[in-house]
Amino acid sequence: MSAPRAHATACVLSVGDELVLGQALDTNSMWISDRLLVLGVRPVEHATVPDDLGAQSDTLRAMARRCDLVIATGGLGPTKDDLTRHALAQAMGDVLVEDDESLTFLEGLERERERALTPERRAQALRPARSRALPNGFGTAPGLHGVIDGADVFCLPGPPREMRPMFEAHVTPAIRASPGSAVSTRVLRTYGLAEADAGALLSDLMERATDDSMVGTTASGGIVSVRLRATGADAVRTLDDLDALVRERLGSAVFGGEHETLATLAVLLLKERGERVGVAESCTGGLLGAAITAVPGSSAVYDGGYLTYADGAKTSVLGVDASLIERHGAVSEPVARAMARGVLASPIGARTDHALAVTGVAGPDGGTDEKPVGTVFIGYARRGGATEVRHFRIAGDRDDVRARSVTAALGMLTFALRGVEAPAKLLWEIRR
Amino acid sequence: MSAPRAHATACVLSVGDELVLGQALDTNSMWISDRLLVLGVRPVEHATVPDDLGAQSDTLRAMARRCDLVIATGGLGPTKDDLTRHALAQAMGDVLVEDDESLTFLEGLERERERALTPERRAQALRPARSRALPNGFGTAPGLHGVIDGADVFCLPGPPREMRPMFEAHVTPAIRASPGSAVSTRVLRTYGLAEADAGALLSDLMERATDDSMVGTTASGGIVSVRLRATGADAVRTLDDLDALVRERLGSAVFGGEHETLATLAVLLLKERGERVGVAESCTGGLLGAAITAVPGSSAVYDGGYLTYADGAKTSVLGVDASLIERHGAVSEPVARAMARGVLASPIGARTDHALAVTGVAGPDGGTDEKPVGTVFIGYARRGGATEVRHFRIAGDRDDVRARSVTAALGMLTFALRGVEAPAKLLWEIRR
Repeated sequence: MSAPRAHATACVLSVGDELVLGQALDTNSMWISDRLLVLGVRPVEHATVPDDLGAQSDTLRAMARRCDLVIATGGLGPTKDDLTRHALAQAMGDVLVEDDESLTFLEGLERERERALTPERRAQALRPARSRALPNGFGTAPGLHGVIDGADVFCLPGPPREMRPMFEAHVTPAIRASPGSAVSTRVLRTYGLAEADAGALLSDLMERATDDSMVGTTASGGIVSVRLRATGADAVRTLDDLDALVRERLGSAVFGGEHETLATLAVLLLKERGERVGVAESCTGGLLGAAITAVPGSSAVYDGGYLTYADGAKTSVLGVDASLIERHGAVSEPVARAMARGVLASPIGARTDHALAVTGVAGPDGGTDEKPVGTVFIGYARRGGATEVRHFRIAGDRDDVRARSVTAALGMLTFALRGVEAPAKLLWEIRR
Repeated sequence: MSAPRAHATACVLSVGDELVLGQALDTNSMWISDRLLVLGVRPVEHATVPDDLGAQSDTLRAMARRCDLVIATGGLGPTKDDLTRHALAQAMGDVLVEDDESLTFLEGLERERERALTPERRAQALRPARSRALPNGFGTAPGLHGVIDGADVFCLPGPPREMRPMFEAHVTPAIRASPGSAVSTRVLRTYGLAEADAGALLSDLMERATDDSMVGTTASGGIVSVRLRATGADAVRTLDDLDALVRERLGSAVFGGEHETLATLAVLLLKERGERVGVAESCTGGLLGAAITAVPGSSAVYDGGYLTYADGAKTSVLGVDASLIERHGAVSEPVARAMARGVLASPIGARTDHALAVTGVAGPDGGTDEKPVGTVFIGYARRGGATEVRHFRIAGDRDDVRARSVTAALGMLTFALRGVEAPAKLLWEIRR
């Protein structure tokens, strides 16, 4: 017998009617792929099939032809629709036998629960003759390990709380990653540029992608994330090089790494200065305050703010001149400015150094030709400093406009706190 | 040309390196499958492949051979790694051409945003010559509809907020379900009961499930949803019968249908009365105000509120007696009561009839033996009426405690506005 081949690539299979029919969400494939990548095996496909013998065994065979390692989850339980044992046997061209250790384990389990080992439960001791059973320390169903066309196939139970420890116990130690194949990844978070603009600035790096190194972008709610990946012995150095290139190209738009958000950065920078921020919200209705206080420890830099949704509240709570609202409208540059100054002049302003104010048309109603839905003015005031107001036109529905307004507000605050120059025109900003 | 065949079965394809490598979770496949099932088409497989031309086109072809309808998401954006247009062309054996309408749309979009139409963005107007482009009302990337081996293939953008409306606009009307296969579903939303308790009250209905009819529960953030499904000619009558049984069993916990939230119900009931609510938030930090203002038209029933995160803000803004905080702690029954009364006495209270106040320990720090993380007091005050305070102990991390506190607050408000009796002990409530 030749030496077993290295595990360069893997396929991940999820089994279950409830998954294919959209009645339950598959989170196993993501978890397994993330683990495999770190272990040096590259996931190349996920598939989800119903509790169907033919579909399961066909997919197992096809996957085994395509890659070196197959991880399947689900279909190992005691009910009639659990067919993974039979499917593996069929895909291996093997017969099912009863595994002695599994049977002993199942008998013990049922004795403990003072239940009978029914034929259905006993069927969980079956395995293809040329496979081995994998003990399950967190449930009843043993897993399976077989080989099809030289590819290792692991079948694990579907419930994540059983699957994850079994993966670590049985799959992790069995991985034969190609030497130097462990993958390192890094994520840089940016704010201020559209994804297409970031992509244009990085296009040569993105095109230069090889199996060993890669630069890619994803965007969510105004945050463009640049994902770096490198493989092999030099991975960390490659990542450092890519990291430096991306920062050079994207400039001040890069604000942090994978676990950083604009809110965590704002809280961090305020803490360093021993300063505080307060908020006044109209169209965002509380989302800005919620984003700041989502950061544990934000109480060190934040006392609170004001939800001035109605025009009258802007006047009675923040002291915005009613004639200003009458002349310019509640969604306007002067009102955003007055709201931000109003926070600094309020009771909460007593020990607050920075203030953000948001007023806009979130839709679906309330838009005009001059100020369509998505028009948002954001004011940033600083004690003893000038007040800056930016005018945005944000695409999307009510939820999008509100969530993205929060991003823009925290973007303005963090550019100010970082003391770096913002891109000439922020994402969604329009010239006055 | 023969009549186009019915859509009996469907395959769902998700495209993206970030998905295959386990860096992001695919929620599109579940959503699409759930919609297809309701439309009478049976999903038979999901697959996820990387941003790779060969893998994408091979999978499209294989899926088109296997079923009548293929829904693919992702890979339509403006960056180099977006290859779905090319993959569809390759799978169709077709060439790419520029779509005039898409080009006009993209040009208009960029003009509006005062940006140039870069070659990268312009590439989004490409489509296989024998396909048609599907306008995208919520983003930049048009979708595609082509035919491979007689199977309809729809390619939609990956972001759910673009994909979902495009599915409804372009896929739903194109479905040719087999006669009698359409599935009817209904969802009842409940608040106040734990899922296990709701399940126990419905257990006989849930066990009685057949291929044609089903009752199931799902829970999210304290809202337990009861899902009803029925197939065939009598589907609507079956749903009506199940609906009545569920309401009989769960009583006042049932507050609405699929598209109802506690916030939409609160806004509706307040509008009917011509009354207004105001808020004071500590641990929720703005999430309660955000939930109310997430409802379009909420300005008719809501003027605003106060984010009193620091103890000092509770005193200076809401007039909570500092000695009360000193004696009982900021997270306490008397402080929740004083915060709620404080809203009614504030400038915003001038035309506000109901007030909600939330104060709690969201964690991860700040918990004590007496008031562990998850301890939340919610006050509900009514002009000219008594003030009710409930004491909750909410499980989960910081985000969970905050989000569930909002549910509990809106739950208290809606029980009061509906004038029905709440369950003896609300979900998460602990006896004083």
